[in-house]
Amino acid sequence: LDSDAAFRGVIPYLISPIDPATGRVLEEPLRELVDHLIGHGVHGLSPLGSTGEVAYLSLEQRVEIVRVVTDQAGGRVPVIPGVAACSTAQALRQAELFTGLGVDGLVLILETYFPLQQEQMASFFETVARQVDCPIVLYSNPILLGSELTVDTIVELSRIENIRYWKDASGVTGKVLSVIGRTGGRLAVFSASAHVPLLVLMLGGVGWMSGPACIAPRQAVRLYDLWLSGDFSGALSLQRALWELNELFSVTNMAACVKHALTIQGFAVGAPLPPQPELPARARSELAAIIERLSSTDSCSASLL
Amino acid sequence: LDSDAAFRGVIPYLISPIDPATGRVLEEPLRELVDHLIGHGVHGLSPLGSTGEVAYLSLEQRVEIVRVVTDQAGGRVPVIPGVAACSTAQALRQAELFTGLGVDGLVLILETYFPLQQEQMASFFETVARQVDCPIVLYSNPILLGSELTVDTIVELSRIENIRYWKDASGVTGKVLSVIGRTGGRLAVFSASAHVPLLVLMLGGVGWMSGPACIAPRQAVRLYDLWLSGDFSGALSLQRALWELNELFSVTNMAACVKHALTIQGFAVGAPLPPQPELPARARSELAAIIERLSSTDSCSASLL
Amino acid sequence: LDSDAAFRGVIPYLISPIDPATGRVLEEPLRELVDHLIGHGVHGLSPLGSTGEVAYLSLEQRVEIVRVVTDQAGGRVPVIPGVAACSTAQALRQAELFTGLGVDGLVLILETYFPLQQEQMASFFETVARQVDCPIVLYSNPILLGSELTVDTIVELSRIENIRYWKDASGVTGKVLSVIGRTGGRLAVFSASAHVPLLVLMLGGVGWMSGPACIAPRQAVRLYDLWLSGDFSGALSLQRALWELNELFSVTNMAACVKHALTIQGFAVGAPLPPQPELPARARSELAAIIERLSSTDSCSASLL
Amino acid sequence: LDSDAAFRGVIPYLISPIDPATGRVLEEPLRELVDHLIGHGVHGLSPLGSTGEVAYLSLEQRVEIVRVVTDQAGGRVPVIPGVAACSTAQALRQAELFTGLGVDGLVLILETYFPLQQEQMASFFETVARQVDCPIVLYSNPILLGSELTVDTIVELSRIENIRYWKDASGVTGKVLSVIGRTGGRLAVFSASAHVPLLVLMLGGVGWMSGPACIAPRQAVRLYDLWLSGDFSGALSLQRALWELNELFSVTNMAACVKHALTIQGFAVGAPLPPQPELPARARSELAAIIERLSSTDSCSASLL
Repeated sequence: LDSDAAFRGVIPYLISPIDPATGRVLEEPLRELVDHLIGHGVHGLSPLGSTGEVAYLSLEQRVEIVRVVTDQAGGRVPVIPGVAACSTAQALRQAELFTGLGVDGLVLILETYFPLQQEQMASFFETVARQVDCPIVLYSNPILLGSELTVDTIVELSRIENIRYWKDASGVTGKVLSVIGRTGGRLAVFSASAHVPLLVLMLGGVGWMSGPACIAPRQAVRLYDLWLSGDFSGALSLQRALWELNELFSVTNMAACVKHALTIQGFAVGAPLPPQPELPARARSELAAIIERLSSTDSCSASLL
Repeated sequence: LDSDAAFRGVIPYLISPIDPATGRVLEEPLRELVDHLIGHGVHGLSPLGSTGEVAYLSLEQRVEIVRVVTDQAGGRVPVIPGVAACSTAQALRQAELFTGLGVDGLVLILETYFPLQQEQMASFFETVARQVDCPIVLYSNPILLGSELTVDTIVELSRIENIRYWKDASGVTGKVLSVIGRTGGRLAVFSASAHVPLLVLMLGGVGWMSGPACIAPRQAVRLYDLWLSGDFSGALSLQRALWELNELFSVTNMAACVKHALTIQGFAVGAPLPPQPELPARARSELAAIIERLSSTDSCSASLL
Repeated sequence: LDSDAAFRGVIPYLISPIDPATGRVLEEPLRELVDHLIGHGVHGLSPLGSTGEVAYLSLEQRVEIVRVVTDQAGGRVPVIPGVAACSTAQALRQAELFTGLGVDGLVLILETYFPLQQEQMASFFETVARQVDCPIVLYSNPILLGSELTVDTIVELSRIENIRYWKDASGVTGKVLSVIGRTGGRLAVFSASAHVPLLVLMLGGVGWMSGPACIAPRQAVRLYDLWLSGDFSGALSLQRALWELNELFSVTNMAACVKHALTIQGFAVGAPLPPQPELPARARSELAAIIERLSSTDSCSASLL
Repeated sequence: LDSDAAFRGVIPYLISPIDPATGRVLEEPLRELVDHLIGHGVHGLSPLGSTGEVAYLSLEQRVEIVRVVTDQAGGRVPVIPGVAACSTAQALRQAELFTGLGVDGLVLILETYFPLQQEQMASFFETVARQVDCPIVLYSNPILLGSELTVDTIVELSRIENIRYWKDASGVTGKVLSVIGRTGGRLAVFSASAHVPLLVLMLGGVGWMSGPACIAPRQAVRLYDLWLSGDFSGALSLQRALWELNELFSVTNMAACVKHALTIQGFAVGAPLPPQPELPARARSELAAIIERLSSTDSCSASLL
């Protein structure tokens, strides 16, 4: 555990609520969601990730979402939005606009069109990192983004001062083991949803950046607290219940899942952005059932504490 | 051969020349390139495709490129820019901006982030097509874009009035055979670079939309003319020489290849957009050699005519 | 067209009829099939390919099939069985056993388990080729076999005297163009089912090794004859009808298709080897309809001749 | 932890030493290896896995290896060879031959050629399991074998009495979590090398079937013992050192690695079977360095105990 990490714990990915008719950001439900999540103890907020449908948003929409979230968070927890682009220049532009709005850090996401070598991927991350003052979370995702940083590249990038975090979506736990072993505390590791987050914590990770935490913030925070307190078996039991969300995500559309789950909970965040489909009826029932089970697991665990 | 197709023949993909310091479109070399290509007999121009590094450009840069190309073409040949987005709303916005600049058609490119079902892909193409007046070229590319329209979906989309063209980058010639057979002349097919274009013509295709044609417009047009005149064996011989460009493209970065080849030919179009690399030294020599060989093949073929 | 090629034209892949209870080769239907195919004018026979479920057979079953087919063919057409193995030693053993039974050539199939470099793939083909006297057909299939010979490796292997043929299942027509261009007549190319065979012939191929030809030998031979006679448009029309078989193959199990189609035609060849499934009811109807259409196309084409 | 599992702990995959000239099994080094591994405390032996180059061996070679290993083990630890085939019939034949030699269980490996549905994969495992008396280890490997059992299929197969184990090579820890959660103790889970084995143990796994354990049996057994004794941090430290073997395996040929590492340690097991290459010089040095480091880690850990 890297005790100096400014970002740690449970950091939900925020959905992006958009008015389908006008394309405008739905400010009210977004502000309500921010308050709700902070109220349940999350340790940070990350808008504009995969869950935030970042690839489907215009630059104006992205800026507006960062403005609203940063304003509503009001410094209570760090706000760490995603900067996502194929081109270094577009990433720099987003980084400049977002830091101008007072964010606390950036999740740097390299989208790829033509395939890149490690050297070029590294140049993207390095160029943007050197241009900003805030801490950077490296993000690679071989499946959704087509970019896969090797352990060697990650180790090299960790030598740049403000590259302080890495969030891996490969699901390869051996890679997490190697990166933690080889960066000697320079780089703190967050679990993404491709991993069982509890295992990343066991390996020395500092937290969990996740879509499921946007649906079940209380349980996600408790999982983290159980682990912190050394109660592995309590944490494992809660992890099993939470993992059902990940399983459902993997066979449906993630944004559709999270938006529907929030709608059930009373947040008018709307549907996923077309051409993405709304969650089909069967998945809706399954999602409702998982949320139901999570609530009861939650109570049981609570009594164990 | 669908004799009613308004778009046919050789339609080069245009590169996007950008000033690396300011991000501004380099207007002069772009205008020169447009004149050069039209001067060598190409039948249309398509900015903002893969070769045009569309995924690396801001909306402002895209609009500026369409403005310059449309203005310079001045109606001499049709201009058919790419509209590329993950979201239907972003695609609609681009389509509106481009048609406002007087383009003759649109290549509609579905980028994907979260995987889509055929029904949702179809909704993207249909929604945009119904919103504009000009002819639409469907474009699917399973490797670069992750979207692969099935024959059934293409046949269904061909029933929408202004969906008149399909350009396939799968390289599966059987699919071309099936689509041409099943759309009964409603859909004209263009070859992409994943195919040997001469074979797509033999199957009933109407032309070739291509990056190589931006490098070797005269030879590409001659290939098309030889085929039109029924000289298959002359066309095959020229095809073999031209195919070397495709082979080089497939092992390097396409934009880097085309931009370097144009630089050799005197167009100051600059380097590919970072983090894409410039063409390595070895590929530069190989490219120069292929261009050299193409020139001589060209003269030989000329004497055969 | 390489006029010295001993193997050319239509060479069907044979299915492997096995008694499910005893595992013994069903000799009678296999002999009847051999006679039937030769009677319809095929130019060779290839047992033990993908269609022959070679990966599902014991060595004893493979030997028995080669014995029966070679005996029944009786020198009327060449017999070219598949030698398929991950290990060079197992391939050598099969090659020795099959050549001892009087086969005319071998289709050499490299199965892969651990990934190989080109150099090692080449050593497999070279070692086996140098150990036998008969002509060798190189076979690579990136999808089913995981081995993909590059153009460079194929060109190098073509320098070995008895490596005379290449059958490509990649479906990449540009590769066929390059190999034919670069082997200068040393290597004759057969189309596999991943290609539209007529196009491979147009590029300079010598024939079609195929599962569909086992179902529709008369139409396959006519396609070849139409092409030989220079009637491209007649050939294209027949190709379209035949391609429906390929389309059905690609969404079902190939062995199940061919075995069921032969059963319809009166050959008691049985079901595919478990755990492969029999053809589902819906595909059976579709297959029957295609065969029906093929018969009528056949008559039409006949009258055109 | 399923306390009734007969197989548990560290079970190395054995290499297959073959005389390259004659193809005969090298009996002496194989017997020495069996004694060496048992002497270092391994809890079972598994010949004929991926590490055992099973896909490269004839049926006779497989039988001979099982005979030698079973004989030499002499009941000291269970022997659980791999049964590997595309066809149910071939798998049944191997199972019958191996159980006739007195093995204690079978690792059932479904090789695939044509793609299969879950139902057909299940029928392969079920048919073989019902035909034998001994415990069965299900094995799926999406990368090397192309077969990927879903959680649902595994849960269903776990209802067959002698299907008692599952070894997963997908590396997806969430799948392990789900299978353990949903099979309610009916199925014990082994870690394969795609996982960090310590994590699979933390999730409730019973052991580690592995190639690295054939190289470093003492350290692998100590890792297991440290975990059993509740010393997670000691185990994690040893895991990090052992993981270097997995990292090297993943960029080289696994059989080449293990065979070379055993050769260094004095076992004359020879080279990997052609066309697989011997370990390149650079990987040899790296392997020697890892083994060196492992020995010292080992001593340190020892003093900690």
